[in-house]
Amino acid sequence: MSEIKENALMEKIVSLCKRRGFVFPSSEIYGGFNGFWDYGPYGCRMKRAIENLWWHEMVETRDNIEGLDSTIICHPTVWKASGHLDQFSDLMTDCKDCKSRHRVDQMEDPTTCPNCGSKNLTEPREFNLMMKTYVGPVFDNEHTAYLRAETCQPIFVDFQQVRNSARQKLPFGIAQIGKAFRNEINPRNFTFRSREFTQMEMEFFCDGEQGMEWFEYWKEQRINYYKNKLKFTDDFFRIYEHEKLAHYAKAAIDIEVKFPFGWGELEGVHHRGTWDISQHSQFSGTDLQYIDHDNKRKVMPTVIETSVGLDRTMLALLGKAYDEDTAATQKEGMEEDVRIVLHLPPLVAPIQLAVLPLSKKLNENAEKLYKDMNRYFRCEYDVTGSIGKRYRRQDEIGTPLCLTFDFESAADNAVTVRDRDTMQQERVSIDNLRNYVEDFINR
Amino acid sequence: MSEIKENALMEKIVSLCKRRGFVFPSSEIYGGFNGFWDYGPYGCRMKRAIENLWWHEMVETRDNIEGLDSTIICHPTVWKASGHLDQFSDLMTDCKDCKSRHRVDQMEDPTTCPNCGSKNLTEPREFNLMMKTYVGPVFDNEHTAYLRAETCQPIFVDFQQVRNSARQKLPFGIAQIGKAFRNEINPRNFTFRSREFTQMEMEFFCDGEQGMEWFEYWKEQRINYYKNKLKFTDDFFRIYEHEKLAHYAKAAIDIEVKFPFGWGELEGVHHRGTWDISQHSQFSGTDLQYIDHDNKRKVMPTVIETSVGLDRTMLALLGKAYDEDTAATQKEGMEEDVRIVLHLPPLVAPIQLAVLPLSKKLNENAEKLYKDMNRYFRCEYDVTGSIGKRYRRQDEIGTPLCLTFDFESAADNAVTVRDRDTMQQERVSIDNLRNYVEDFINR
Repeated sequence: MSEIKENALMEKIVSLCKRRGFVFPSSEIYGGFNGFWDYGPYGCRMKRAIENLWWHEMVETRDNIEGLDSTIICHPTVWKASGHLDQFSDLMTDCKDCKSRHRVDQMEDPTTCPNCGSKNLTEPREFNLMMKTYVGPVFDNEHTAYLRAETCQPIFVDFQQVRNSARQKLPFGIAQIGKAFRNEINPRNFTFRSREFTQMEMEFFCDGEQGMEWFEYWKEQRINYYKNKLKFTDDFFRIYEHEKLAHYAKAAIDIEVKFPFGWGELEGVHHRGTWDISQHSQFSGTDLQYIDHDNKRKVMPTVIETSVGLDRTMLALLGKAYDEDTAATQKEGMEEDVRIVLHLPPLVAPIQLAVLPLSKKLNENAEKLYKDMNRYFRCEYDVTGSIGKRYRRQDEIGTPLCLTFDFESAADNAVTVRDRDTMQQERVSIDNLRNYVEDFINR
Repeated sequence: MSEIKENALMEKIVSLCKRRGFVFPSSEIYGGFNGFWDYGPYGCRMKRAIENLWWHEMVETRDNIEGLDSTIICHPTVWKASGHLDQFSDLMTDCKDCKSRHRVDQMEDPTTCPNCGSKNLTEPREFNLMMKTYVGPVFDNEHTAYLRAETCQPIFVDFQQVRNSARQKLPFGIAQIGKAFRNEINPRNFTFRSREFTQMEMEFFCDGEQGMEWFEYWKEQRINYYKNKLKFTDDFFRIYEHEKLAHYAKAAIDIEVKFPFGWGELEGVHHRGTWDISQHSQFSGTDLQYIDHDNKRKVMPTVIETSVGLDRTMLALLGKAYDEDTAATQKEGMEEDVRIVLHLPPLVAPIQLAVLPLSKKLNENAEKLYKDMNRYFRCEYDVTGSIGKRYRRQDEIGTPLCLTFDFESAADNAVTVRDRDTMQQERVSIDNLRNYVEDFINR
């Protein structure tokens, strides 16, 4: 892999994302909207693939995890109980001269306005990061509600309802994927810190006595997921053990990965003790303790949380995957001196298999094969330009396999399959194609 | 099918949805939150299945439709251009005595307060249905933004970016699934009219000359989808042709279905002329016309829209599926006198195949088979209670096929498969099981 400097890498990825329709600024024709990003056709395919993979690994293949899809706006007391209304804030100061507002922890000198240099600043005050709205016919405090700042609180609120209807006993978990909103004062690093983002969270409820065991279990499960499914190698992956814990927490780690701008948090695995369910029991007046019939006792469930950002997962994958391959220059008959290639894991590449007929005369059979393969994999059909150009187009979006349908294909019932990473080609029988691609994707 | 009165049917469905974890009020332990509903484990599975089916039919199998996943909050001028800020409103009046607020079009007598009977009402004024929030550090007009009231506007805003990066020519479409928000004064009919809901919209861009042709094409496509995939029969399905059209529109139909409360709109197929792209061209100052290089001219794209509510689809399916089968009483050795059953289309049933070992001694082999089948279908494994009780539990959530693993299964490598609707049983070889279930689901 070539050495691309971090600053340059971020620029290259932002540019590729816009050019090829992965991610671009929301409302761009209106000048964009700071902290909001839209996913285009390939981005949307990749985002759905990551979401479906997580859901499959965390929910569909586990009998002790249930799914939930709760609203973004919920009862405002939820955020009182969770502590967000009182504590989810940054310390801010206003410049009385130029009227600009700043986060105190980001000011070089907290007594000087970074905008105009004035010393005439207000006393620092807390600025809450929750986005508020009004529900109902009047816009006043009584009708104020909030966009959720995280997807996990509704999981705690619905804990008993889900447990009852799903007939689950401790230990079991509830998972949710959905949008969350934070009024970040300073959105930055592309999609890493934005104001609207997608979380994938799982809250595992257990007896406190087994808390640390389950914490270790989920830590291991999540590390395996990143190593085996998303192919993060050790040089892109590290564990940060929290030394300072929230007063209720028993243990916490962050899974950090190398983003295009440097190391950052991708996922948290946290042992949250009984805090969450206790708080909602208290604020709602509903006893949310679990009744352990076998041992005739009540248990306040302990929570182990795994929480990951979908947008961050995608950004990390793109950063890790990006390469400019200068050695490949002449190999495939291309004159350009750089091959831009995304070495994305085949499980989450937006396109898994491209079908490329060598000539338009071969369209009919090639298109039939494409339609057949498209039932099983994310496929694309491309007839435009030389084969070399089409390879490069697929390399740039991370397509792991390209299939060339040529003049012999109809006769020998076989196609040439080209590997994105090795650029090796192999003749594969059409009858065996589905298995070949399936094995390749899951290897 | 038994005759269940409309009022009673709605109550039964709301009750079943809560009991079995399909849908229940958001924040219920806090007294609920009017107009907001959460989807539990089965509801979430069914919702994802409908979403994936629509996406597959509308995007993945069509080369001329691209996917998009845009933010919920976008630049506020988008809603100025779309007309929502000026026109998306209801006429409201306030009672000066009891301070209640009412929609004028829902008052029996628009001069009398329905709450206290006072005649002391304010002049009616427009109340906008968009939910607003503030983005950035100051809560004022300049920082006001809106939660999208429909998923289609960002499609228009991103039209050119998507077209360019996806290298599409007219005609082609862009599809999006996502949340939308409306501050309904009077949310009602369960999930039919709520304040937060999921839309599935596709905007098809074409040359105006082909507009009516494409309108007819999409009308037919969407009707076929409801008939063939979601199995709506004529008694549950009708087309409403709009007589009064928006000034810019050329043609519009609603696909109406019978909901538990009566007939209502499920989907709209609308010929919107060049209105949307013209408006965003004008307000953004970006020329969004399509350049037709072949004919050396510019085309302002005409839009054909297909727009459906995901929550409504699910509510309609549940209403259509619900039955209380009194004839079945004794058939399967059950003493209860009513079999509650959801005749859901197998493609979207939350569970497609239940695996039921006849005895706990058979667990090992049965569970192996379950895990194998769970790779291909939405499966559930249930060992609790008599077979009859387990059948009833699956009937109530609409599982089309139940598989009994019995004492002969290991020896003859076969299982008994029971059909939810006919209650007929059939011996099926385990080697052929995957094909059998696949055929059944897609028939």
